[in-house]
Amino acid sequence: MRGLGMTGGVGLAYGAMSTIGLAPAAATPPNRFQPPAMGDLIGKAPGKQSVVVLGGGPAGLCAAYELRKGGYDVTVLEARTRPGGRVYSVRGGTTETEIGGDTQTCTFAGGHYYNLGATRIPQSHITLDYCHELGVEVQPFGNQNANTLVHYSSDTAISGQSVQYRAAKADTYGYMSELLHKAASRGALDDVLSPDDKEALSEFLSDFGDLSSDGRYLGSTRRGYSGEPGAGLNFGTETEPFPMSDVIRSGLGRNFSFEFGYDQATTMMTPVGGMDRIYYALRDKIGTDRIHFGAEVTSMKNVPDGVAVTYTQDGARKSITADYCICTVPPNLVGRFDNNLPAEVLKALSAAVPASAGKLGIEYTRRWWETEDRIYGGASNTDKDITQIMFPYDHYGSDRGVVVGYYTSGRRHLAFESLTHKQRLDKAVAEGMSIHGEKYGRDIASSFSGSWRRMKYSEGAWTNWKGAGDSHGGAATPEYELLLEPVDRIYFAGDHLSNAIAWQHGAFTSARDVVTALHQRVAAA
Amino acid sequence: MRGLGMTGGVGLAYGAMSTIGLAPAAATPPNRFQPPAMGDLIGKAPGKQSVVVLGGGPAGLCAAYELRKGGYDVTVLEARTRPGGRVYSVRGGTTETEIGGDTQTCTFAGGHYYNLGATRIPQSHITLDYCHELGVEVQPFGNQNANTLVHYSSDTAISGQSVQYRAAKADTYGYMSELLHKAASRGALDDVLSPDDKEALSEFLSDFGDLSSDGRYLGSTRRGYSGEPGAGLNFGTETEPFPMSDVIRSGLGRNFSFEFGYDQATTMMTPVGGMDRIYYALRDKIGTDRIHFGAEVTSMKNVPDGVAVTYTQDGARKSITADYCICTVPPNLVGRFDNNLPAEVLKALSAAVPASAGKLGIEYTRRWWETEDRIYGGASNTDKDITQIMFPYDHYGSDRGVVVGYYTSGRRHLAFESLTHKQRLDKAVAEGMSIHGEKYGRDIASSFSGSWRRMKYSEGAWTNWKGAGDSHGGAATPEYELLLEPVDRIYFAGDHLSNAIAWQHGAFTSARDVVTALHQRVAAA
Repeated sequence: MRGLGMTGGVGLAYGAMSTIGLAPAAATPPNRFQPPAMGDLIGKAPGKQSVVVLGGGPAGLCAAYELRKGGYDVTVLEARTRPGGRVYSVRGGTTETEIGGDTQTCTFAGGHYYNLGATRIPQSHITLDYCHELGVEVQPFGNQNANTLVHYSSDTAISGQSVQYRAAKADTYGYMSELLHKAASRGALDDVLSPDDKEALSEFLSDFGDLSSDGRYLGSTRRGYSGEPGAGLNFGTETEPFPMSDVIRSGLGRNFSFEFGYDQATTMMTPVGGMDRIYYALRDKIGTDRIHFGAEVTSMKNVPDGVAVTYTQDGARKSITADYCICTVPPNLVGRFDNNLPAEVLKALSAAVPASAGKLGIEYTRRWWETEDRIYGGASNTDKDITQIMFPYDHYGSDRGVVVGYYTSGRRHLAFESLTHKQRLDKAVAEGMSIHGEKYGRDIASSFSGSWRRMKYSEGAWTNWKGAGDSHGGAATPEYELLLEPVDRIYFAGDHLSNAIAWQHGAFTSARDVVTALHQRVAAA
Repeated sequence: MRGLGMTGGVGLAYGAMSTIGLAPAAATPPNRFQPPAMGDLIGKAPGKQSVVVLGGGPAGLCAAYELRKGGYDVTVLEARTRPGGRVYSVRGGTTETEIGGDTQTCTFAGGHYYNLGATRIPQSHITLDYCHELGVEVQPFGNQNANTLVHYSSDTAISGQSVQYRAAKADTYGYMSELLHKAASRGALDDVLSPDDKEALSEFLSDFGDLSSDGRYLGSTRRGYSGEPGAGLNFGTETEPFPMSDVIRSGLGRNFSFEFGYDQATTMMTPVGGMDRIYYALRDKIGTDRIHFGAEVTSMKNVPDGVAVTYTQDGARKSITADYCICTVPPNLVGRFDNNLPAEVLKALSAAVPASAGKLGIEYTRRWWETEDRIYGGASNTDKDITQIMFPYDHYGSDRGVVVGYYTSGRRHLAFESLTHKQRLDKAVAEGMSIHGEKYGRDIASSFSGSWRRMKYSEGAWTNWKGAGDSHGGAATPEYELLLEPVDRIYFAGDHLSNAIAWQHGAFTSARDVVTALHQRVAAA
């Protein structure tokens, strides 16, 4: 089964179940892009099999949803009082007490929110298929904007200046094109470029860099105007390019490649009203009677012919036994359960290092970024600790909105993690003002922040596997591989066991793989 | 006044009216981006002055709206039975008979439409301020997408292949970076690059081109996968880059610069429900009693102390006299009125050459571009006659949608302009199938096309000024300059008299300039 999964993706893994008589083979049309298949586990399990799912986040709810399609008796235990786990849309009424921190209660106006966890969906991810299947409405997420700013320190005259992305790109692409055109013209690349290549390259560079007829970059209207062109003889006021050496040495282009990334390139999508809409929809499909919220697991053990789980809920100690268990609890927390897992499994779990990351939402009563800075969505980037400022992708043109004042991870999040909320806000606003000006500090109605390593039931933003650096996939370690296998009747699932770590797609595909494996086992029994 | 308008844009032109005592000076905060000001002509005209506005498109309705703020007695004459002019949202029930053509009646399902004219708004344009002021809700318009396709013919192996933008960019940027890195490493640019420059450039190129540690482009996950990465050991199936010479000679990157353009760079916006929502909102603000629809102007003449206009409406001949006239009728049609314009003005009007352009909307009952090609908005591009295929930016994840099967202009639109609607559809579907596959020809529910040179009351998509090529502004010709001046009490306005030809921004700023000039004249009288 894994072999099929490796070469064909989840669609084929699911389709292949027809070979064991559980699901009809779907006629798969030839398709260049091979999109992930829709949820389609329609074969019924022989006999009534029970599964207890630990965790009501993306992996847990996806597993429960797919198992229900197959006729399984499913129970989900979720410690929080809401579905979604690290998919967490903060809105008016949201209350959170960080470990060792004060209690914050969000007071954003109705309809306004930000996603403290997962916030965007690439077009290829199976997450969008689930949105489609569940009837969750989606809209574009602004991941790129020519009018947002870059602001970096350097030893050039550009240091500490706020520069629109469009200007940074025009200058960088302009000089890059001029330089390559010059080198090719001089014959410096004649060993690798034919005369035809050189002619075609020259034509491309002239357009790509907006070069003059003699191959020089002298500025471009692509940079934008300091005075907007209008009617009559108002031709607008063009801006001057930065000098070439300053552009190169300032590193203005250090973040351009972000938007070329497979999982970050435009168009990115997101559910209308908050990412958690997906999990409320799954909750409703699974049935609230099958999901126990506020259920803190204390013990998980393989027992003869089943798995026994104990948990506390409303102060009472409860237990449940099922034929199988799917554990989607973050790997850094599993070892705290009373358990009978083999030592090598516990050791493997301890190789999952929780990452530090967090965000701060600032509610403004005036959308200055639209009316003054002409920014509709997207993010400004900086080498200050805040890393980025993300502008809202909804409520355009209205009278208020929630800006994400920082989204930081790793070393740069440590600058915020240990602070109180007030200190985080003060630091974020001070840095933001140095980029977007004094208005960044005005018209603030409220704010709310969160650091995932200090959030109960997660204690991490995502998983870094020891020996795999900060890779989000593609670098399977021995510990990772071990945890792909069930321990008797306990299966592990979650984005940490995928090649899309920190993405819902990873959690969903992991859950689907585990459900497939479990379903096959039941069928073969 | 024009001098102020030139240097400061419309905001200053309006603000400067305080110097003649008509409008209070707004405290304009220092602002790097100088956004256009909101409509703010709040001073009242001395005495009751009347203005007849010819044309109910963007320029005409903007002029009427602003004049009403100033207390003018305004009448708008519009030949069509709807507001908006060349801003034309085609939806179920829309009927159009092209000059010399068959009558089409649109049967798109409820809520679905496409904009046959203006369809997108850059962030800097005053159009967004009007949306804000009028309460017209806006949403992002997909102008760029990594998953849409390029499809060009060339003498390379890539000829006739459909290539995702993400792959075309990855290969182009990769080889471009490799070549520039190689040239700089060889010392070919040592006269223009310092050692520090070279080091910083190398660092940038490594990231920009996703180069190997020895500076080579060997492919990139940015290209996308033929099999989507998933969980466990499904690392996805990467794709192979095209050879460098083929990438360069095929011109894969010929359209990359489109999205760098000042007025096309992401984020582009558009009203929810159709661009014409702006003009229905203006109609309601102006008052339907002040706008005469179905009023075909036949005569426009300066008379002593006023302007006399005759028109036919419901078969009856009617006339109106006003103190002033603002004529926003396309310049190519003004000379047909019975008129007493000076010969030099008529000659100037004849220098306005109507451009050929048009679109075709195809309603599909299945959003194959989302579920199969993983495309959420944006456009595929080709050197075939259709030029581009534009995907819908609304109703994401639903069960039907309207694709713009071509948006062509100039020489390439001539391939469609003279065809019947059926012939246009057949040609567009055949070319679309060669790009997106057989599915492009299936699940079609209905279609609707329009060519602006064949549309009554427009007879052109926009204006090309003789001697200015196909420039959309910035190249004022003597004829253009002459028409900026009123002829006695007749003023001309429209995007053709702006540096944003074919944009609503051009029409609005032209209208605002004319209203400002007229208002000043009245105040000085």
